[in-house]
Amino acid sequence: MIEQAVDAVDGDRLRADLEANAEFGALDVEEGRGRTVLPGTEADRRCRERFVDRLEAAGLDVRVDRVGNIVGRYVPPGADPMAPAVASGSHLDSVPRGGIFDGPLGVYGALEAVRAIDASGCELARPIEVVSFTDEEGHKFGDSLIGSAVATGSMTPEEALALTDDTGETMREGLERIGFAGDGVLDARAWEAMLEVHVEQGTRLERAGVPAGIVTGISGQTRCRIEITGETDHAGVTGMDERTDALAATATLVSGIEALARRIDTERGTTVATVGKLEAEPGAINVIPGRARFTVDIRDTALEPIERILEAIETKLEALEAERGVETVLDRLYTVDPVPMADSCQDAFAEAAGEAGIGSRSIHSGAGHDAMLVASVTDAGMLFVPSRDGRSHSPLEWTDWDDCTDGIRLLTGALTRLAGE
Amino acid sequence: MIEQAVDAVDGDRLRADLEANAEFGALDVEEGRGRTVLPGTEADRRCRERFVDRLEAAGLDVRVDRVGNIVGRYVPPGADPMAPAVASGSHLDSVPRGGIFDGPLGVYGALEAVRAIDASGCELARPIEVVSFTDEEGHKFGDSLIGSAVATGSMTPEEALALTDDTGETMREGLERIGFAGDGVLDARAWEAMLEVHVEQGTRLERAGVPAGIVTGISGQTRCRIEITGETDHAGVTGMDERTDALAATATLVSGIEALARRIDTERGTTVATVGKLEAEPGAINVIPGRARFTVDIRDTALEPIERILEAIETKLEALEAERGVETVLDRLYTVDPVPMADSCQDAFAEAAGEAGIGSRSIHSGAGHDAMLVASVTDAGMLFVPSRDGRSHSPLEWTDWDDCTDGIRLLTGALTRLAGE
Repeated sequence: MIEQAVDAVDGDRLRADLEANAEFGALDVEEGRGRTVLPGTEADRRCRERFVDRLEAAGLDVRVDRVGNIVGRYVPPGADPMAPAVASGSHLDSVPRGGIFDGPLGVYGALEAVRAIDASGCELARPIEVVSFTDEEGHKFGDSLIGSAVATGSMTPEEALALTDDTGETMREGLERIGFAGDGVLDARAWEAMLEVHVEQGTRLERAGVPAGIVTGISGQTRCRIEITGETDHAGVTGMDERTDALAATATLVSGIEALARRIDTERGTTVATVGKLEAEPGAINVIPGRARFTVDIRDTALEPIERILEAIETKLEALEAERGVETVLDRLYTVDPVPMADSCQDAFAEAAGEAGIGSRSIHSGAGHDAMLVASVTDAGMLFVPSRDGRSHSPLEWTDWDDCTDGIRLLTGALTRLAGE
Repeated sequence: MIEQAVDAVDGDRLRADLEANAEFGALDVEEGRGRTVLPGTEADRRCRERFVDRLEAAGLDVRVDRVGNIVGRYVPPGADPMAPAVASGSHLDSVPRGGIFDGPLGVYGALEAVRAIDASGCELARPIEVVSFTDEEGHKFGDSLIGSAVATGSMTPEEALALTDDTGETMREGLERIGFAGDGVLDARAWEAMLEVHVEQGTRLERAGVPAGIVTGISGQTRCRIEITGETDHAGVTGMDERTDALAATATLVSGIEALARRIDTERGTTVATVGKLEAEPGAINVIPGRARFTVDIRDTALEPIERILEAIETKLEALEAERGVETVLDRLYTVDPVPMADSCQDAFAEAAGEAGIGSRSIHSGAGHDAMLVASVTDAGMLFVPSRDGRSHSPLEWTDWDDCTDGIRLLTGALTRLAGE
């Protein structure tokens, strides 16, 4: 029966859904295909309304919670309606000028999987819920993963609804205006498990020539801000031995961070460290910078290498103080623990891949996703499909339609397994 | 007779002049003593009017040229009024929130020297001219050394007068408003020689415990802008081996420039290279910078080490392209040749120092001054006095009054020598 459900996945129907969804907030771009769908906007309203229509057209019961999370519920033949459901989904919002796959593939893919399961007549033990979480990207209200944070209890609905955008409008007002301020709160703790299909946003699958990546875990991360203070001086009259150049001191640290992350990553394959933002003050061509401020973002699937890099940074800062006479301040902004994906979910994907004859490999996720928060309350799993050139958050984001279909076939197989054939 | 002139230098009178001048555009600061005197402002008017009063009170003939350069002429007993004059001076304008010595010491010091020479009754062969050049700092009209550029023919008075400030007002309008748009053009070519006393703006004299620095030359410089382009990517999902980080590439170059300049400076003592401005784009904590732009300012008293550093930068850029896959563009903005000070002027200062028993040493200037432009048309010399902690362009700029007096005593001795005792 699983095989029939997997075979019933209709790539053309999935593609039609994704292409129709891509019209909302569509960008006029020369290359690629982009969209901007920010929560509470007209594009978001139309995007959500069509999704609800499609859920209902497939015979699912739709509910919308207080923060706009949308759930379509399917009770398969033979299932116990009281049993904890297996869920699958992702998000429909995008970053500004984002791509058409990041989020919608996981949402419409879950719907396609349910349609395929339904078409196969497969008898299962548990209900299946298709979910679209509100505001995963976080570009409007300043915080990301809002819908899944509320559904997993890490944020209250009141906190979420009180978030304001740049114009001072609250999320509550935005959701009310577009008609998606619903009732109750989606409770992810009630789920047996949750699966999310997402584009990789990196090049590992493409380079390996493998269409599916079974996510082992989501990297933890530490972010910090560092300020190095030297002395602002005249670039002409201050000799090389007289200056305390904050930027030159910073440069050695930026190089050192990259070199160390590379070295550790050579062993692990999961380590990244990035200096993304750097400002030198006062920033004039003929003035030695007296201050430099920069950020460091360190990620790994384990905390130990993150801490190792952070300790090396602290040691280097002390050395810079001693050797160069600068003052340094390291402000650790926050740390997010790594999140392993549930073995049950990884196994379900792996068995589905084996059965369908679709190549897969283990992969980690360097970025956060809704499933990361869900993993704190129930079993969660993720499947990555290849991103052309690793592009994402851009109109150049692309996943071949065949890869989309293969991914949803694996999702279908895994969902039927987890919902108990 | 020279000795009597030198002995007639009145440090208290000089100090009174400098302190009175410091009132124009005075800042209300907690520490130090600062002023803002930008060309064409009310502070500039009052500053200039008092200077003219003081020139006239000393019996000098005053003229103001089209671009506001002010000259007070003294014809000593026995001098041929038709002989080329020996000049001395500097500028009265300041940077925004600048110090009280940078410029005025050279202007009022020249006046004090003339008063001392006059008081001594010294017979000399040539007239002496005390000069204040318009807009040396260049913070209002976008170009520096305006007055001396016009006086040396490197800029026409029409070009200078047409310069506009941020509000669109021309220098001509500014000078007319304050009543300092005069007649004719000061011609530095007519001078036999020109001497400028200035604060060092570095720490070499202070560290050496020497009150006077006889400037051997003014550094040449090259400025360039470099752009390094990599790929903007997600800091979490892009592995260390997948990224083309423009900022990490830049950091190695910034470190390399500092290290090379230090090495060359160890041999020469005159080499500096500075990365003063650096911007990383897009500049987000979780995004790998796809582009970095920065500036390099390289100076030395000879062109060869400047070119050597520039060639090393070009070689390093090629290596970064080959090793890291970045694209690089180096835009050489301009090059200013080093300017040696005339032997005649250096000798005059050295002899004066020997006779007065004031310690002196040779020193180079890393920054441009009015005398740098004058050196292109006649003999020019500079004398530096110590800057406490090397501070300048700041209310913390300070030179002890005794050092000011010693500097002007040396100027007096050098002027009487050059004017032909």
